[in-house]
Amino acid sequence: MQGIDAYKQLIEKEITELKIKDEPSGLYSPITYLLGLGGKRMRPILSMMSAELFGGNPKEALNSGLAIELFHNFSLIHDDIMDNAPLRRGYPTVHTKWSEKTGILSGDALFVVAYHYLAQNTVTYLNTLLHTFSVRVMEVCEGQQMDMDFETRDDVSIDEYIEMIRLKTSVLLGAALEMGAIVADASRDDVQRIYSFGENVGIAFQLQDDILDLYADPDKFGKQVGGDILANKKTFLLLKAFELADNDQQKKLQELSEEVDEQMKVEETRKIFDQLGVRELARIEMERHYALALESMELVTASVEKKKPLLKVAEYLMNREV
Amino acid sequence: MQGIDAYKQLIEKEITELKIKDEPSGLYSPITYLLGLGGKRMRPILSMMSAELFGGNPKEALNSGLAIELFHNFSLIHDDIMDNAPLRRGYPTVHTKWSEKTGILSGDALFVVAYHYLAQNTVTYLNTLLHTFSVRVMEVCEGQQMDMDFETRDDVSIDEYIEMIRLKTSVLLGAALEMGAIVADASRDDVQRIYSFGENVGIAFQLQDDILDLYADPDKFGKQVGGDILANKKTFLLLKAFELADNDQQKKLQELSEEVDEQMKVEETRKIFDQLGVRELARIEMERHYALALESMELVTASVEKKKPLLKVAEYLMNREV
Repeated sequence: MQGIDAYKQLIEKEITELKIKDEPSGLYSPITYLLGLGGKRMRPILSMMSAELFGGNPKEALNSGLAIELFHNFSLIHDDIMDNAPLRRGYPTVHTKWSEKTGILSGDALFVVAYHYLAQNTVTYLNTLLHTFSVRVMEVCEGQQMDMDFETRDDVSIDEYIEMIRLKTSVLLGAALEMGAIVADASRDDVQRIYSFGENVGIAFQLQDDILDLYADPDKFGKQVGGDILANKKTFLLLKAFELADNDQQKKLQELSEEVDEQMKVEETRKIFDQLGVRELARIEMERHYALALESMELVTASVEKKKPLLKVAEYLMNREV
Repeated sequence: MQGIDAYKQLIEKEITELKIKDEPSGLYSPITYLLGLGGKRMRPILSMMSAELFGGNPKEALNSGLAIELFHNFSLIHDDIMDNAPLRRGYPTVHTKWSEKTGILSGDALFVVAYHYLAQNTVTYLNTLLHTFSVRVMEVCEGQQMDMDFETRDDVSIDEYIEMIRLKTSVLLGAALEMGAIVADASRDDVQRIYSFGENVGIAFQLQDDILDLYADPDKFGKQVGGDILANKKTFLLLKAFELADNDQQKKLQELSEEVDEQMKVEETRKIFDQLGVRELARIEMERHYALALESMELVTASVEKKKPLLKVAEYLMNREV
């Protein structure tokens, strides 16, 4: 996938050369800091790949892709405050390194930069891109709100969970592809199809995340296996387990949510998950969304050859072990 | 000023009919709440008046004006968190009524709505409007950062203070006029002139605010006279006093900053202000910016008759007692 590397280089170059001012440094240095922590830059890469798929010039998707990437980073700053997260990509989060105030304000400023990049697009597509971007980022906000609401609720259904990860994670992957298609002048149907491909890959990706968090090979995983269980996070696995558990298992799961012995908490919870077969059910749900993604791609008006790079990315995301 | 009332009605109608969704309510109800607290809607009124000044249709400035008004409200939500403010327009601030998390996220969502309104403009002016809006709202972020930086600094100069209020308050008044001029197809010079008019009126307005906070008629003022002194706020008056004070007065001002007897703190500080004549100096600085505003308006290519309504607004703002 040489194309992807070339795209990533181009994106990194743009991000390094972002005209972020120096003063007031309290506003701008947290932005430079966060963007400097790296990241896969998956979203802008997807925008460029989508433009290429539809016969457009990938470089014309760069501004939209960057807008999405910058919005993504903005949302990380604010989400990390809301989630009290100390680390991001192994480094202190902005609000930990500076302060919550700084996190709020420099996040806002980064949001402005995101719209600024979006506005660099030629006037032909500007209306459509702006509309699409606003709709999608609003959905991301809704997803974050649902996620926060879930923390204090004990009646979250699997459907609600899927809807939350769709909004919080998948919509932006879909949007990256969608906006690449728009600047490549794809048909309205194709824009919708490539969005749907991205959205479903995103949902499958997040379900894979839920599974890996508990069942990954600890030697390869790079972070603590069972982190979600320790944080009492309402993942697909836990919600499904509560749905299927009998009274005894429900009681046990409740007790385990307050267990302080970390090893025991993870092991005993996993035992119940295994009894109920929730890992397999998560895998089935993941495969279902992956299949939906492939169906959408099937319908896209482009040659099989042209579709290969994006299909490879999806396949890679599904088969990852970390 | 019948026109202004008509504009305000139109603006209120738009704000009431804003298509804010219901769910998730944690995200959207704080927005409805804040917008429902009212406000003078000065910024969108200025946009409409500016469009009319330049022979445009005031209604065509509505979307830009609303974008500015919504951004202003967004910034109030986030600023209130950063400033730990309990009340806004006499009612609990969003983060007090809900939570900081809610304030951060629903603020973000309101920012998206602001850009959404901006994007409703016809494609002819869209690029210019987007660019102007992004530049101006970034300046507002810079102003808020400077204001926060000032809290922990003891070497803030008068020039820095004027720059801070320019960015934090005045730029947005200028931007409202500027964007009204853009949609009315005013010349580039006139756009710059009307912006400068608004910016200088804004600075004069803020200096008037500093003066009124201490010297207003308590019966008319509606809030505690001397609030800035009690909060040790670095206003023009205080900064100028420190600049002019002799050693004894400096020492006294330092001591007063820690005085707990509120009445004594206000009275004794005012005594030093009066000895140093800082009220008069603030008035002179205010008049200077008002004169600059009038000079800019003088240069605007429009009849004296057409300029009258905006000049009346400026005059009203300068001569207010509350």
